[in-house]
Amino acid sequence: MLDPAFTARFQISFGDCDPAGIVFYPNFYRWFDATCHGWFRAAAGSHARLCAALGSVGVGLVDSGASFRSPATEGDVLDVALRVEAWNRKTVRLGYRGTVGDRLVVEGFELRAVFVHEDGRMRAGETAPLRALLERTDGNGR
Amino acid sequence: MLDPAFTARFQISFGDCDPAGIVFYPNFYRWFDATCHGWFRAAAGSHARLCAALGSVGVGLVDSGASFRSPATEGDVLDVALRVEAWNRKTVRLGYRGTVGDRLVVEGFELRAVFVHEDGRMRAGETAPLRALLERTDGNGR
Amino acid sequence: MLDPAFTARFQISFGDCDPAGIVFYPNFYRWFDATCHGWFRAAAGSHARLCAALGSVGVGLVDSGASFRSPATEGDVLDVALRVEAWNRKTVRLGYRGTVGDRLVVEGFELRAVFVHEDGRMRAGETAPLRALLERTDGNGR
Amino acid sequence: MLDPAFTARFQISFGDCDPAGIVFYPNFYRWFDATCHGWFRAAAGSHARLCAALGSVGVGLVDSGASFRSPATEGDVLDVALRVEAWNRKTVRLGYRGTVGDRLVVEGFELRAVFVHEDGRMRAGETAPLRALLERTDGNGR
Repeated sequence: MLDPAFTARFQISFGDCDPAGIVFYPNFYRWFDATCHGWFRAAAGSHARLCAALGSVGVGLVDSGASFRSPATEGDVLDVALRVEAWNRKTVRLGYRGTVGDRLVVEGFELRAVFVHEDGRMRAGETAPLRALLERTDGNGR
Repeated sequence: MLDPAFTARFQISFGDCDPAGIVFYPNFYRWFDATCHGWFRAAAGSHARLCAALGSVGVGLVDSGASFRSPATEGDVLDVALRVEAWNRKTVRLGYRGTVGDRLVVEGFELRAVFVHEDGRMRAGETAPLRALLERTDGNGR
Repeated sequence: MLDPAFTARFQISFGDCDPAGIVFYPNFYRWFDATCHGWFRAAAGSHARLCAALGSVGVGLVDSGASFRSPATEGDVLDVALRVEAWNRKTVRLGYRGTVGDRLVVEGFELRAVFVHEDGRMRAGETAPLRALLERTDGNGR
Repeated sequence: MLDPAFTARFQISFGDCDPAGIVFYPNFYRWFDATCHGWFRAAAGSHARLCAALGSVGVGLVDSGASFRSPATEGDVLDVALRVEAWNRKTVRLGYRGTVGDRLVVEGFELRAVFVHEDGRMRAGETAPLRALLERTDGNGR
């Protein structure tokens, strides 16, 4: 499999879990988003600086999804690996794989666009400048 | 289109939004889940009582997804309509449609299973008893 | 007791609760903040418009606290009443009282300031214009 | 000042911040709680095992508070230090200090009790067994 573009680690705490004692699932999307923003930060310093460089109001969401492969709970350390699955002209598809040790917990994706304001409306701009900016750095900001 | 099985209304607040000024997307999943639990509550009193009736440890997530059709922001009132898209033998697929007034904001789904403990493992049980229980009531608990 | 300046109602859902089966306490602060923003919205349309009217970057937090009087859980409907406890020159103290039916669940406060940018720094401005704006409307935006 | 009993580090992400571009304040309480649970985990493996050892249903909240000393934003790394401020007979007061580098961001506290079920009601038990258990380990689980 492709090397991840970025990885992030999250300590799962009591408050991330629900009365069934396992992670309340919207938190996995929160961790996907945080991994993506870690990648942006490694490349550009912050989402704000990334957007300034791109003339964008936000590198935001068009679509998303997650499949829950095994439960995660308090005390688990979740490693999330981000891979670019496809650079399209107006969207980029990011794949996420969350593991606790060797165990697969969650797989998901985000489809993101580089939103720009134009004539008072928001529309998706070209992704090429985002790609150029992100590929200048390898994983984890080195 | 099919009548919704359940609808719920959410007031979008400042704290639900991110530095781009729009809803931080994992919150939409939080509202999908809250709509589903409203439906469970209307039928059975609570998730806990639903599970007790089914001998289940949780009617939990297998898969999920959401497409973001237009932005929502502070002050918007989000109406979420839940429709059962498919009763499968071991899963049920719930569709969600979130609107602000007439404007479509988000469409999504959850694939849920009735998890049971068996021989020290968690597995998906039959959905038929869940269906019977939920179809005893029409939408919104009447 | 003083009439509330604003009240808001929250349906407590499964995902608001932790593995102990009761509300994960930071959510109470989320509901205090949402009540305050409901009050701002009733008076000015939104926090953004309130800030524009005041030349402020945000009516933000200086201090906060909450005492937990009895547990709240899935299915409970929480009513939060906001009262202005003190208008100080540079801060306003808001008191919150959260009840489920007749039962007191949480009492808390927020100390807020009208933050303004000045010489590249953020500082607390006078509260008098905020007070004038909020007292033009009575509770719940009428 | 007393050495911390436990410290934890949090990467502040885009989604932790609000439309004003700074941390949405209930998240600080989420991080206080996560720091406390890290401490419990270091001593006992998890909150669940801690409770089992104490015959408790939860080491939960009675009171809490936080003062916001300077803003924190996306990309900041928040270090939270937990200190025991007072062991009382039925409660323990935990102090939190959150810093970004040398800069103080937040100071707060939690007053917690060891809740036990007795005659169908929940009440605060003695804290001595909790203290004994936690003081067996020094900071960070060594």
